Amino acid sequence: VRSPRNPDTLFWVEPDAVEGDRLTLAGDESHHLLRVHRVAPGAPFTAIDGGGVAYECVLESAERGVAVGRIARREPGMGEPPVPITLLVGLPDAGPTETVVEHAVPLGATAIDFFAAARSGRAPLAPARLERLLRIARAALKQSRRCRLPILRSSPSLEVALGSLEGGRRYVADPAGRRPTLEGGDRGQAPVILAVGPPGDFDDAEKALLRRSDFSPISLVENRLTTETAAVAILALARNLFI
Amino acid sequence: VRSPRNPDTLFWVEPDAVEGDRLTLAGDESHHLLRVHRVAPGAPFTAIDGGGVAYECVLESAERGVAVGRIARREPGMGEPPVPITLLVGLPDAGPTETVVEHAVPLGATAIDFFAAARSGRAPLAPARLERLLRIARAALKQSRRCRLPILRSSPSLEVALGSLEGGRRYVADPAGRRPTLEGGDRGQAPVILAVGPPGDFDDAEKALLRRSDFSPISLVENRLTTETAAVAILALARNLFI
Repeated sequence: VRSPRNPDTLFWVEPDAVEGDRLTLAGDESHHLLRVHRVAPGAPFTAIDGGGVAYECVLESAERGVAVGRIARREPGMGEPPVPITLLVGLPDAGPTETVVEHAVPLGATAIDFFAAARSGRAPLAPARLERLLRIARAALKQSRRCRLPILRSSPSLEVALGSLEGGRRYVADPAGRRPTLEGGDRGQAPVILAVGPPGDFDDAEKALLRRSDFSPISLVENRLTTETAAVAILALARNLFI
Repeated sequence: VRSPRNPDTLFWVEPDAVEGDRLTLAGDESHHLLRVHRVAPGAPFTAIDGGGVAYECVLESAERGVAVGRIARREPGMGEPPVPITLLVGLPDAGPTETVVEHAVPLGATAIDFFAAARSGRAPLAPARLERLLRIARAALKQSRRCRLPILRSSPSLEVALGSLEGGRRYVADPAGRRPTLEGGDRGQAPVILAVGPPGDFDDAEKALLRRSDFSPISLVENRLTTETAAVAILALARNLFI
């Protein structure tokens, strides 16, 4: 007899549906657990509420299609990067914002700010758009086995975006920058902040502001990259070289 | 008076439309050059035919909407990576194959093989799908200012994919692998070959085959990544650390 296997995905639980050592999955997640993954009472599963803790559970009951789990163990920080990683992205079109979220969440971004850059040519994202991106982030979180939902925002300018940052090591993607190295001792414990220009790049005032704000220019490739490719590439590099 | 500026994009020319020091753009590219970018006779533009040479041209005539350029200078290898980079990708769904091509071409992949892995659960890509991916590669080539169209193929198995490889430094994305370093002297001149599993990962036989075929496992992040995120991440890393 094979012991019941933990399903190969995480399940989302609303924060207010966790009470003491019990949690209750909402309708769609219950359906997914009970019908798609056919988990039966007594079998294990793992849930996250996006707040930074994973709940290893045993299914206690499945009455009327509602999954109730007993929390066997809490795993704080499961799948989270060891330091916060903030990604500042010059606001592109809607499609590319979704691409960035889909790839940046599995690669460990803890905050993404799609700031309206001078050359973005558009207003910051409306709440409904951010809500949609948050749903994409939630799916990516489950898929990649992280437990803390990244902060998503859309500042009205680079200056405002920089104003809400804490300290940390700062890098901007720039074809004219230096190549990243490990010899230089780029690995460290401080938070990492990464900036990528909008389609059409930062304007001169933004570039000057980034220099004054201690962003080191690093080169990814000599080729021209779209905003979304540059965002994923700098994050993959930072996650491996700077942390 | 400002001198005419080279449009900020490249134009595609069919290889057989380059004759001596003249080239002729096809209908849609002529339209783009003459109507969208409003390039007038005497002004410069750059064309590529995907064969590995960029042609810096001066527009010679625009009669009946057909752009004919005089080739002022040939730039072999413009925007190409210094060594060939082959990406072996366990065949995912159609959408993710397009995502891989969109991001991998600007990051310098010179060949991509979407091989049908044991767990791909699907046949290799049909010619019509490869043709569609080639169109995406062409657009990405123009956008990122490269001049050689990558080779796109879809082998029926990992074994067949490996059989068509030349020598080179070989790496496979594997959460259990070592972290990439520069101290270890990963940078080099030999071709780079990168492998990424299909959704559901390589099976045991494929993993053993990769080991026997000298693929070093390197870890990107501890998180589970989709095939497409892993492909873009390992390429961004390789382009910066191994070349």
